[in-house]
Amino acid sequence: MLFKVEMDVNVPLDLEPAKFEALKAAERAYSQELQQSGQWRHIWRVVGRYSNVSIFDVADNGALHDILTALPLYPFMTIRVTALCRHPSSIRDDDR
Amino acid sequence: MLFKVEMDVNVPLDLEPAKFEALKAAERAYSQELQQSGQWRHIWRVVGRYSNVSIFDVADNGALHDILTALPLYPFMTIRVTALCRHPSSIRDDDR
Amino acid sequence: MLFKVEMDVNVPLDLEPAKFEALKAAERAYSQELQQSGQWRHIWRVVGRYSNVSIFDVADNGALHDILTALPLYPFMTIRVTALCRHPSSIRDDDR
Amino acid sequence: MLFKVEMDVNVPLDLEPAKFEALKAAERAYSQELQQSGQWRHIWRVVGRYSNVSIFDVADNGALHDILTALPLYPFMTIRVTALCRHPSSIRDDDR
Amino acid sequence: MLFKVEMDVNVPLDLEPAKFEALKAAERAYSQELQQSGQWRHIWRVVGRYSNVSIFDVADNGALHDILTALPLYPFMTIRVTALCRHPSSIRDDDR
Amino acid sequence: MLFKVEMDVNVPLDLEPAKFEALKAAERAYSQELQQSGQWRHIWRVVGRYSNVSIFDVADNGALHDILTALPLYPFMTIRVTALCRHPSSIRDDDR
Amino acid sequence: MLFKVEMDVNVPLDLEPAKFEALKAAERAYSQELQQSGQWRHIWRVVGRYSNVSIFDVADNGALHDILTALPLYPFMTIRVTALCRHPSSIRDDDR
Amino acid sequence: MLFKVEMDVNVPLDLEPAKFEALKAAERAYSQELQQSGQWRHIWRVVGRYSNVSIFDVADNGALHDILTALPLYPFMTIRVTALCRHPSSIRDDDR
Amino acid sequence: MLFKVEMDVNVPLDLEPAKFEALKAAERAYSQELQQSGQWRHIWRVVGRYSNVSIFDVADNGALHDILTALPLYPFMTIRVTALCRHPSSIRDDDR
Amino acid sequence: MLFKVEMDVNVPLDLEPAKFEALKAAERAYSQELQQSGQWRHIWRVVGRYSNVSIFDVADNGALHDILTALPLYPFMTIRVTALCRHPSSIRDDDR
Repeated sequence: MLFKVEMDVNVPLDLEPAKFEALKAAERAYSQELQQSGQWRHIWRVVGRYSNVSIFDVADNGALHDILTALPLYPFMTIRVTALCRHPSSIRDDDR
Repeated sequence: MLFKVEMDVNVPLDLEPAKFEALKAAERAYSQELQQSGQWRHIWRVVGRYSNVSIFDVADNGALHDILTALPLYPFMTIRVTALCRHPSSIRDDDR
Repeated sequence: MLFKVEMDVNVPLDLEPAKFEALKAAERAYSQELQQSGQWRHIWRVVGRYSNVSIFDVADNGALHDILTALPLYPFMTIRVTALCRHPSSIRDDDR
Repeated sequence: MLFKVEMDVNVPLDLEPAKFEALKAAERAYSQELQQSGQWRHIWRVVGRYSNVSIFDVADNGALHDILTALPLYPFMTIRVTALCRHPSSIRDDDR
Repeated sequence: MLFKVEMDVNVPLDLEPAKFEALKAAERAYSQELQQSGQWRHIWRVVGRYSNVSIFDVADNGALHDILTALPLYPFMTIRVTALCRHPSSIRDDDR
Repeated sequence: MLFKVEMDVNVPLDLEPAKFEALKAAERAYSQELQQSGQWRHIWRVVGRYSNVSIFDVADNGALHDILTALPLYPFMTIRVTALCRHPSSIRDDDR
Repeated sequence: MLFKVEMDVNVPLDLEPAKFEALKAAERAYSQELQQSGQWRHIWRVVGRYSNVSIFDVADNGALHDILTALPLYPFMTIRVTALCRHPSSIRDDDR
Repeated sequence: MLFKVEMDVNVPLDLEPAKFEALKAAERAYSQELQQSGQWRHIWRVVGRYSNVSIFDVADNGALHDILTALPLYPFMTIRVTALCRHPSSIRDDDR
Repeated sequence: MLFKVEMDVNVPLDLEPAKFEALKAAERAYSQELQQSGQWRHIWRVVGRYSNVSIFDVADNGALHDILTALPLYPFMTIRVTALCRHPSSIRDDDR
Repeated sequence: MLFKVEMDVNVPLDLEPAKFEALKAAERAYSQELQQSGQWRHIWRVVGRYSNVSIFDVADNGALHDILTALPLYPFMTIRVTALCRHPSSIRDDDR
């Protein structure tokens, strides 16, 4: 099942740089693992913001919640979830 | 260049059904042509709404404006455009 | 899968009363059929408004979209969908 | 009487982990006690957020206020209360 | 039980004056009957607006919904309901 | 003259408990003195929030400003003031 | 007593020009009469909008309500009222 | 040229009282000097808030910016500027 | 003096095409005349919307109001005006 | 390609003055370099705010993101990006 997930990251100004770098590295590894598995279908950066627009394809709502709350940067994120489904005009087999 | 485009359609309640069907058929044909050409990269339906979330990949801002204002349902739409770019964590070659 | 669905109904002031009654009867029959099948798990009225708060339990996002857009009063509704999942503190087996 | 209660939890980033765990355990125990008594009728998690959607069935407004302000996590919560009543189309005897 | 109810009235500009006067007379009679019975405890006009702030004291949520949706001007109203309870600092016996 | 005043209290999480208790006691004494004098006509608690809805009856705008800014909890409050006047349908002599 | 009053005028596109001119003339005459009497202390136009910012000095809230609802253009207006009082730094005797 | 300027002051709770008093004294002196020169035409307090509504009459936009950013309390302020002009119905020669 | 002016155009769906074309031609001629005179310094289209972002350079606030309210499409526009001034980092002599 | 970029700067009250001055000097140098290169086409100050309105002309979305996130004051900024294109009524060759 498909969801648009929008994540805004607000890191405190006094977060220790080494800790921040470690968190970003963990976030990237975690994201890429989920992209490999096909659950995190797309991720794009929003121009001018520390935000992304993503498309997830997950087994169910609970699976999405577990994935999102395990994000290394989750404590610093505001997340908006929108349920999507196939558009009748789509010609792409995998935009289901 | 990539853009997230969100379209909400609000058709007047008294729109003549035959005219509405013709508009929707034209919209679908127009959308599929742009999907074929690669400019309209993705389109999904928002659950419970007459709205879509789309990703466009166009030559420049002016090209996107021309595409959107030529949509057959454009007079009934509210459109929000967000500039996107490649996310450093993305593993998909075509999410650039 | 569980979703909170909030529906606000705005019927035009000049809607013909007989047509409105027919729509409300159809809406009620349709809702009760879905309640019987277990897909429309709960429905409550919001005090002082022509709105409801509902809980749906459906196979997937597409099923929810099909159910909602087939509501007899759908053309007069504004709908907000929120994806839910089981709360770790819940003691009710069927609030999954 | 029925109320939809929506709770968003915002815990400070520097809350001591042991204190946070103790608060969550107390919150769970308190919630389950009220679920057992029938006053906290339903609780669901909102996907991607530290938030819940709940349905309370209480004797009166004052009882609801006393229950909510005694939540162990209350100092970290933003709470929205919406008065509900039975929907005329409901077929469930206990959605009154 | 106590509720703050805020009502905004938006009457269409082309409502027939005689019909509007009849509706206002019916609204006044209905309001005064409920004030007499004690259910509509207070009503004030908001300066510069066709709006009121009211306090209701009703048996339960369902009673309030029935009262509000039977208002003669209800089809032209936007209504916001807020559940209240006794304030611990209040010295008035009847602000319970 | 009548005003609806809505007060939301946001006390910092690290406010010293003894200081907070002293402030609340002072707030209660101050409020009750103004209730006795008839200037603070009504006060109700908003269910689930550290907020109140109040009705003031004061000599003029300046008197209301002086009363509100002298509230012991004023530094922690967000206050919204709405000018009210007698409603033509009111039957209560003192809701003027 | 002083109030800031902000008025936005939204006249329907199909209002008959002669009727509109008559309304504007009546509005101007009414406004100037109140300016002469000292109750409508100031009026300014908001650049680029059919809106004004005004300062009223009236005996009480009820007087302001009566003045505003008698505006010839009132049926087309959205009005926001803000209670003001003398600022301690003011050096103008009449900004009381 | 005329501008409505609305200033909200949010001073941190832990601002040292002596420093706060010094800032307020400087603010008052600065404001009164500008009132004397005719550039700060009016200032009123908003009832119940640490906010003011002011009217400035300045040579140009740059002059207003320089005046506002030099306010002693500027670092604690949120400021909204609205361009005004003479209202055709005004009878006051100096509300130009 | 410089202002950012943002204009959104909402033309009724049933506006007669010939009348609409005439209005647009008049709008273009009027805009180009003001661009020639240097008062309408810049105009850009917002992608996907019938909106523009413009920079005006006018003698004073009143001149801007007169220009904007004389726009042929003014009755269909929502306009937002923001006062600008020279930025200390600007290197362009004419962005003053 | 053209973009309107609006930047609001919110610097913490306790930022060390020397560090703040250094950041501002770096910001100015960086901005002027980009103005020289033609990518930062315009910059104006918003009256009364620590905000600017800018026009960028960049090769693509990614270039804009890289420019903005490298701003020395970026960690203290909220940025809004709006895609623009040439307006059909523009007479300026370089407002493309």
